[in-house]
Parts: sequence; structure tokens; C-alpha cells
Amino acid sequence: MKLYDLELSGNCYKVRLFAALAGIELELVPVDVMSGAHKKSPLIDLNPWGQMPFLTDDDLVIRDSQAILLYLARQYGGNQWWPDSAAQQAEVMQWLSTAANEAHNGPNIARLVDKFGFTLDKVRALEISAQLLQLIEQHLGQQDWLALNRPTIADCAVYPYIALGWEGGVTLEQYPAIQAWTERITALPGYITMPGIEQPN
Amino acid sequence: MKLYDLELSGNCYKVRLFAALAGIELELVPVDVMSGAHKKSPLIDLNPWGQMPFLTDDDLVIRDSQAILLYLARQYGGNQWWPDSAAQQAEVMQWLSTAANEAHNGPNIARLVDKFGFTLDKVRALEISAQLLQLIEQHLGQQDWLALNRPTIADCAVYPYIALGWEGGVTLEQYPAIQAWTERITALPGYITMPGIEQPN
Repeated sequence: MKLYDLELSGNCYKVRLFAALAGIELELVPVDVMSGAHKKSPLIDLNPWGQMPFLTDDDLVIRDSQAILLYLARQYGGNQWWPDSAAQQAEVMQWLSTAANEAHNGPNIARLVDKFGFTLDKVRALEISAQLLQLIEQHLGQQDWLALNRPTIADCAVYPYIALGWEGGVTLEQYPAIQAWTERITALPGYITMPGIEQPN
Repeated sequence: MKLYDLELSGNCYKVRLFAALAGIELELVPVDVMSGAHKKSPLIDLNPWGQMPFLTDDDLVIRDSQAILLYLARQYGGNQWWPDSAAQQAEVMQWLSTAANEAHNGPNIARLVDKFGFTLDKVRALEISAQLLQLIEQHLGQQDWLALNRPTIADCAVYPYIALGWEGGVTLEQYPAIQAWTERITALPGYITMPGIEQPN
């Protein structure tokens, strides 16, 4: 199983983190994104979307970090990470959409502007980030994990860009419940970090 | 089961459409979004995110249209709409992320600007729309449905903002495979439309 990977991408880190927590072995294939390798043959033939990361498992190719998390959890990780019932799947799915929408449009876009020089609307990214952090703070004031009262792929999907947000000016100083959650995540057995996220103590 | 609903929202229509196709009965609760009812008590107490739509089923409250589709399919719709295996779930999930990300940031944002007067970056929305439509056109040139070679919640999630895109200047003239797909969707038994989408013949 190969993960086509970029070390500095939070979307790639999501998958590396989950695989580490769930004890799933991945072969990392570093992709030279700076030279556009993900948008050229042979990689574009595997993943026409030209986005990072993507996963191959024998003949199967999966794009989109949320879909990869779900695949790994369902195929190799067990129901504790991605459950079976409708109500529980929906509870986790809400956060996979939050990862694809608000966590992307908020802290990820802000980081792309500040750290990588993208020309994008940072004002709007900061507005979305503030709303998102307030909602997550409220949620985590009442429970320890995003869904199901236990670590799931929901936490793996949302955590990276929250933890990397300071690289785009989105800090967690006003959000003690979110800070406590990030500490719970870094304390999980098997946790791994990435550049830009503080090392666990 | 109650869907808190806004007739002109493509995200609400996703759910109404899927329920109609799968024969699932929903009680529609129209919400006065213009007066901000979704952001005030009592609705904000049910759904702190203040977004539309949301669903209640007894004590369960589900936000996010993709999560609602998944819940309805898993609980009431059957595996043909949301499958059981890891590989098949991942195949559908890719498109649920596309609905939450590109279909939102592209044609939905363009429509919000043109039809509802939102101050958002329409140039970027048109760029994202063009990329998205090219990728979907390529995909649908090879298969009739977005995933699993049959109608699934993937189609229900992506179709609304593609079909409504012309209200934001995102038209399908250059995309015959997408046009044919929208015609296949409108021909499905139980199909319903919404204002802004052409009536089926």
C-alpha cells in the first residue's frame, strides 16, 4: 500500500497520523510537488485530480484524504475508528465534511497564504477560522473527542490544520478546550508529528 | 424525521432529492433563513453550527448535508445508495468530499454571488468550477455515474450545485458527458426538482 506523500501537507499528514495510530503500514512515496510531479505523467494518470495525497492498494486508487482515512479504517483499522451504524457513521461524517470545507477554507487557506505565498482571500480565511474554532471549542467543552466519545478518523481529519493554523496566524490561545484536545491527541499511543506542529512532550 | 429546510438551498435539495429517490419519508420544516431563524433559539440550540439543512430523527440531530445523506442511506435506504465495503465506501466518499469542497467553493459560491448578492471571490469560484467540471467530464466520459456504476449518494451530493451552476454563470455547454449525466438523474424514478433546475421532460 503506497501513500503518495508530501511532508509539509496537512492532508498527507492526516493519513500518516491515522496509519501510525492504528498500526497500519504505509509505504510513503515522496512526490516532488514543487516541480509539479503530481500534475504530470505518470502520477496524473493514476490520479487525474492532481491533488495530494493519494493512496494505492493493489489496483485501487483513492484520492481525497477523508476518503483515504475512511478506507484505511474500514479495511484495516476496525470499527473503533470508523463505526458501522448509521447514526455513528453520520456523527463522524459531519467532521469529515468539516475537514473538507471549513478546516480547508479557514486555517489551511490562511497557512497557504502566509507560509507558501498563495494569492488567496486571507481575510475570509480568518473569518471562517474564527467561526470554526468557536464551534469546536463549544463542542470540546462538552466532550473529549470530536465524535463517539473516543478517538476516530474525525479527529485525524480535523486536527492537522487546527494544529498548523498558527503558521497562517490562526492561534489557539483563546481556545483552552481545543488546546486540551490537541494534547490528548499527541498523547495517543503511536502519535507522530510533522514539521510545524510542536513535538509532544 | 424532520428536515429543517430551505427551498432555494442546493444543500437542502440534496437531501430532499435523495429521500425522494430512495422512497424515504421526510417531514419538511421550512426555516425562515432571511430573518436568521437558523441562527437563533430554538434552532441554534438544536444545531449550534447555524447551517442549513439539519435533520432530526427522534433525539438524533445531524448537521451537514453529506452526513445526512449518509445517515438516511445507511439507516433507511439500503446498500445500493451507500455501500458496505471499504473500497466502495471510499469510492463514494471521494465525491462527498468533492461536494463539501470543490462543488461548494466553485459553483455554489458563484451562485451565492450572482443570485443572492454575497460578497465573495467569484473569480476564484469560476476557476474552481472550470477545473471541477473538466474532471467530472473526464470521469463521466468513462462511466455513467460518479461511483460504483450506479446511482449513489455521490450523485445526489454533487448534482445540485452542478445543475444550479448556471445561476452563477457556470454553464454545462462544453460538457456533454455531464449534461448526459444530469439527464440520467432527472430520469430516475422518484426524481424531484427545485427552483432553478429545469423540470424533467
